[in-house]
Amino acid sequence: MNGRAAAVELVEVAPRDGLQNDPADLPTEAKAELVRRVVAAGARRVEVTSFVSPKAVPKMADAEAVLGLLQEDPPGPPGQVRLCGLVVNERGVARAAAAGVQEVNLVVVASDTFSRANQGAGTAETLARLPDLLGAARAAGLAASVTIGASFGCPFEGEVPLGRLEEVAGAVAEAGPDELCLADTIGVAVPAQVTERVGAVRRLAPGLALRCHFHDTRGTGTANAWAAYQAGVTSLDASLGGIGGCPFAPGATGNVATEDLAYLFARSGVPTGLDLAALLAARAWLAEALGHPTASALGRAGPFPPERARS
Amino acid sequence: MNGRAAAVELVEVAPRDGLQNDPADLPTEAKAELVRRVVAAGARRVEVTSFVSPKAVPKMADAEAVLGLLQEDPPGPPGQVRLCGLVVNERGVARAAAAGVQEVNLVVVASDTFSRANQGAGTAETLARLPDLLGAARAAGLAASVTIGASFGCPFEGEVPLGRLEEVAGAVAEAGPDELCLADTIGVAVPAQVTERVGAVRRLAPGLALRCHFHDTRGTGTANAWAAYQAGVTSLDASLGGIGGCPFAPGATGNVATEDLAYLFARSGVPTGLDLAALLAARAWLAEALGHPTASALGRAGPFPPERARS
Repeated sequence: MNGRAAAVELVEVAPRDGLQNDPADLPTEAKAELVRRVVAAGARRVEVTSFVSPKAVPKMADAEAVLGLLQEDPPGPPGQVRLCGLVVNERGVARAAAAGVQEVNLVVVASDTFSRANQGAGTAETLARLPDLLGAARAAGLAASVTIGASFGCPFEGEVPLGRLEEVAGAVAEAGPDELCLADTIGVAVPAQVTERVGAVRRLAPGLALRCHFHDTRGTGTANAWAAYQAGVTSLDASLGGIGGCPFAPGATGNVATEDLAYLFARSGVPTGLDLAALLAARAWLAEALGHPTASALGRAGPFPPERARS
Repeated sequence: MNGRAAAVELVEVAPRDGLQNDPADLPTEAKAELVRRVVAAGARRVEVTSFVSPKAVPKMADAEAVLGLLQEDPPGPPGQVRLCGLVVNERGVARAAAAGVQEVNLVVVASDTFSRANQGAGTAETLARLPDLLGAARAAGLAASVTIGASFGCPFEGEVPLGRLEEVAGAVAEAGPDELCLADTIGVAVPAQVTERVGAVRRLAPGLALRCHFHDTRGTGTANAWAAYQAGVTSLDASLGGIGGCPFAPGATGNVATEDLAYLFARSGVPTGLDLAALLAARAWLAEALGHPTASALGRAGPFPPERARS
């Protein structure tokens, strides 16, 4: 519509980031089914689970079982779907490789206070571990991305200065991941900040692939996604039904919803490979499985143009 | 933050567009109080009521009474607050002038089917009436804006082609209003469309002031507001608490919320003249007065940075 048509990839994070922070607890079969449904709707990159201590995150204790179900009958066209697992240590990398994912995601938090609360270690310490973890992933034949949490603001420290983010992003880039993701973990970013920070990170790591992760907590998720796309980012996390959210932001809505971004990009003439009707059907299934409504705007209002106008 | 700092004016439409489409029915005193509270929070332009047939819109039958209360003790700094009334005919212009508003807003709908459903007359017919109405407003010493409804899509016809909008906008500009407003009446616009349509209207009426009116029905209200600002639009409608909405979009959320845009612009370094804390307090008062929760993201999640980080 504005002359650009670079495709955008929406990385589906509902099975991990979404479910981990949802009040409901889905059975293993339903988790695998969720992955199947989003892949059937066109998703080609899915964060399936996390390979962390079951004591720390009991909801992800069935990581191997979910992957086992998916390996029995792999979803989507052969060789075209990338399943991903979150890892925080070398044991996680080994588990992820054995379970058959194609990719791991590591996390560093930009603000030290949030890093200690969330990761149990300061930013410098998690940065120092990165090279070994990335080396282990590479040795196991896995792609590896690093997400920088709280890239746009911290629930404890408030603003995260641009210089601080640049420092952390520089250290991450130095460690050599396949991709760097700027995450607005608590949903405070605004588009001007996205434009500024994506530009800054691109300048300090020109060759590195960038992804962004937004929450719609303060109504800016969609605006930020569009700003990131305008700044040249063509990979964005999104969560079916907008499920998820952050335990530090009470009453907040969660991740930006996959169907909301699919609508945004489809009506903007930007290919995503996603089928909006199939996504909406998957969302309805998910709400039923969770036993509660989900927060997506498209789920509430439905697509446009309406069927009667299209036919 | 990105080097721009042109101020943006948020026109408060909760008292008219919001309340008219809300299930609750506020008493006249509370309507005047709502205007006082938004003005106290910094609003300098407020759509107070509509001067239309009380049979057509029973909720706005107290238009003169609301204005009467506000004239007894005018809100805000003397001479700095513009109160506005919606009008659809010359009788409305006369009533608005007598009631003491500074401005009237007229409506034309871009799609013919929606125009007939909403205005009881086709687009061409309402366009033909414009010069007389604008003349009457001018003769009464009132500023006059014209809103083009369904500028981004129609609930009956689906897409509204750009050429159609250009045709309607050209005819509106020809009639000589003080300002033209592009309205996404049913909440279907996406930012790429905003950029495209604002640019097109600016090209065909270079000297005319532009305003935009967005709904957050499909999660794009904030993104569209930012796109409009990036395209040079510095006046945007918004509704406290995001109240309002369109009866044609069941389950939809309403107008983009004033506090959500105030947050967006404040964190982007763009002055609005609004006090976010005062807006949030006014929103809480409004939700109480309406007897139901409102839909704004900031109302749910609260501002950022948190107080503990700021102090």
